[in-house]
Amino acid sequence: MAEESSTRALQALHMPERLLLGPGPSPVPARVLEALATPTVGHLDPAFLDVMNETMDGLRALFGTANPLTMALSGTGSAGMEALFVNLVEPGDRVLVGVNGLFGERMVDVARRTGAEVLAVEAPWGRIVEPDAVRRALQRNPGVRLVALVLAETSTGVRQPLEEIARIVHEHDALLGVDAVTALGGIPVEVDRVGIDACYAGTQKCLSVPPGLAPFTLGPRAEARLEARSRPVQSWYLDVTMIRRYWGRERFYHHTAPVNMLYALHEGVRLILEEGLPAVYRRHALVGAALQRGLEALGLELFAEPEHRLPELTTVRVPEGVDDLRLRSRLLETYGIEIGAGVGPTRGRVWRIGLMGHGARKRNVLTFLSALEACLAQEGYPVPRGAALEAAEAVLEGEAAEPPASRGA
Amino acid sequence: MAEESSTRALQALHMPERLLLGPGPSPVPARVLEALATPTVGHLDPAFLDVMNETMDGLRALFGTANPLTMALSGTGSAGMEALFVNLVEPGDRVLVGVNGLFGERMVDVARRTGAEVLAVEAPWGRIVEPDAVRRALQRNPGVRLVALVLAETSTGVRQPLEEIARIVHEHDALLGVDAVTALGGIPVEVDRVGIDACYAGTQKCLSVPPGLAPFTLGPRAEARLEARSRPVQSWYLDVTMIRRYWGRERFYHHTAPVNMLYALHEGVRLILEEGLPAVYRRHALVGAALQRGLEALGLELFAEPEHRLPELTTVRVPEGVDDLRLRSRLLETYGIEIGAGVGPTRGRVWRIGLMGHGARKRNVLTFLSALEACLAQEGYPVPRGAALEAAEAVLEGEAAEPPASRGA
Repeated sequence: MAEESSTRALQALHMPERLLLGPGPSPVPARVLEALATPTVGHLDPAFLDVMNETMDGLRALFGTANPLTMALSGTGSAGMEALFVNLVEPGDRVLVGVNGLFGERMVDVARRTGAEVLAVEAPWGRIVEPDAVRRALQRNPGVRLVALVLAETSTGVRQPLEEIARIVHEHDALLGVDAVTALGGIPVEVDRVGIDACYAGTQKCLSVPPGLAPFTLGPRAEARLEARSRPVQSWYLDVTMIRRYWGRERFYHHTAPVNMLYALHEGVRLILEEGLPAVYRRHALVGAALQRGLEALGLELFAEPEHRLPELTTVRVPEGVDDLRLRSRLLETYGIEIGAGVGPTRGRVWRIGLMGHGARKRNVLTFLSALEACLAQEGYPVPRGAALEAAEAVLEGEAAEPPASRGA
Repeated sequence: MAEESSTRALQALHMPERLLLGPGPSPVPARVLEALATPTVGHLDPAFLDVMNETMDGLRALFGTANPLTMALSGTGSAGMEALFVNLVEPGDRVLVGVNGLFGERMVDVARRTGAEVLAVEAPWGRIVEPDAVRRALQRNPGVRLVALVLAETSTGVRQPLEEIARIVHEHDALLGVDAVTALGGIPVEVDRVGIDACYAGTQKCLSVPPGLAPFTLGPRAEARLEARSRPVQSWYLDVTMIRRYWGRERFYHHTAPVNMLYALHEGVRLILEEGLPAVYRRHALVGAALQRGLEALGLELFAEPEHRLPELTTVRVPEGVDDLRLRSRLLETYGIEIGAGVGPTRGRVWRIGLMGHGARKRNVLTFLSALEACLAQEGYPVPRGAALEAAEAVLEGEAAEPPASRGA
């Protein structure tokens, strides 16, 4: 037997205390951690089914939808992305994907694995996908079934406008699928008002819940598409035709729900609804604007195009002469602050700073800008001392009077 | 905007305290719940990478393997099942699945969705898949690439012998894939000694961790198969060729790891290795035998064939004249004890009682048998008062002297 292996011993967990200001995971509030640690019950326990029902209601509020089919899938945001394509697409279907960052690229990869014919509408990283480009692509390529876009591109900090595109997509009788991983709970998603047919998110961004679940919603047109499939969904694990029988009245066993993660999601959603969605969006808009003015006051250049910046995820260029990795290591080791590196073409050239969910608070703007100043100075960068904090404070104090949502949202 | 939806409010979590003696989830010890609630860090934080490395080591000990490719996938046990098939099978491949319960049936469904030609070797529920039947199926159907079996059938309580089958499978140049969801940490899995090429498990059974992760290991033959694929894995989310780059030295970002669930798994594995695998297996064997003798002393009939019963999951027939649902509801409402119902052909005819991981303790045997006696009496069943406890005690006390592992393991 495995006598010898039992001699190995694992160390006790000793995790450092980090301030998570990267592209996710974001800081998890104590109430969510406590919910996570609530003793486990069975996945068919009547008390747990109540938690599921409430979570569905809460997610409907966050998504801005009345879709009955609104639930949380048992995987991270990327599982939500895969669920969107494997459920709504069949081999040979035409799919159009907006690609202006890493997650658009990922969508292309995921969609191709369904056997679909995948077309990309590309835009430079840091810019939006233009509605006209989508219109032209749909005109050139008749019969597209699904158009997929990223509302909040976590790789670039770009916020994609969707209303005009939704109209164009529906004029062409296609479905609109949207990645709201970094959007949900940070900026309005408004599934029903905009006309989004399928949408997924992740828990570790603006919901302030650890990574592991993918909130997911399908509207009536998408459900009709699901019913009209000619073959089974290629993924058993993410087959929404089966999963909805467990989340619905039938409570038909599919797989064992991640009970404790669902406790945490319930609490994360509860916190957001307690504060109220408008207040939550205002808070994200305010601290995002303060951070961005502060970074500019440092002489740094923001990466995303000015009219389409996310408040919850800011991208900024690494200045000439500053070592990306060394600065981020110093931030982490000296100040316990995590920010994100660039990915793909922005690798080593961009930092990604998240002020998401529980992390989207005034204090963190000041903390981060102060620490960044210190680290930039260590790198020999000519820091205009005090300018960043002054610029950020002006936003945080001044704009508290007038609703800053008018700018950011 | 969604002003009106912000008026909805979710209730605070008030979960009942259950004694989880069903087929999973199993009771989660306080140390694991505490680990789960450890503040989240980033998925690329050096401290978290250490936790991942230690968890891989610990899982190797539990699986009984030296496989470098040993990790935890970001989904429940069913995601592990899907990962096995989508990574090792390509359209047109021949796959042979042993079907003697619900999870064998599920394997057939999952495997078919890869486009494979799936053959089933069937055996009645409650019995093992006979090695000779596997041999005959392989002889009749040349060119089978993968043979898949369930080591611990959670639907029937049957323990599948694997050694002879492993030899047969390898003689036919096929790979052996094994479902160890309800086995890992309860009975020896011994991947390397038996010759299992691919194996997955779940966290919510004998590992005493909430549901949400799938421990997974691939041996050298399976890795070679992965390298030799002619087309990409159909699931992006479960594509092990990509996921291993994150768990390996490269630390290439694939998806955001479920950080807190991995803390919990680390602690669950740590607890098992602290106790020592042989002691853990003996504990499961002892309490399982005690429960089974107790049930028989009540005059109940065990469902699984006598030589091949799992200690951690016991199936027993619902006696004539007793209402399945009413008895289980009474157990839950009066005593806070959850057990499992039968599924498929055993629906309403069988109960499934788990003594898994942290739940596999002497006290729970007595608690359950006492509560069952009370509930059976309420149903008018002629209970031989005291007989069950006496029979169970005889096993728990008497066999503590000689190692009970010789029976159960």
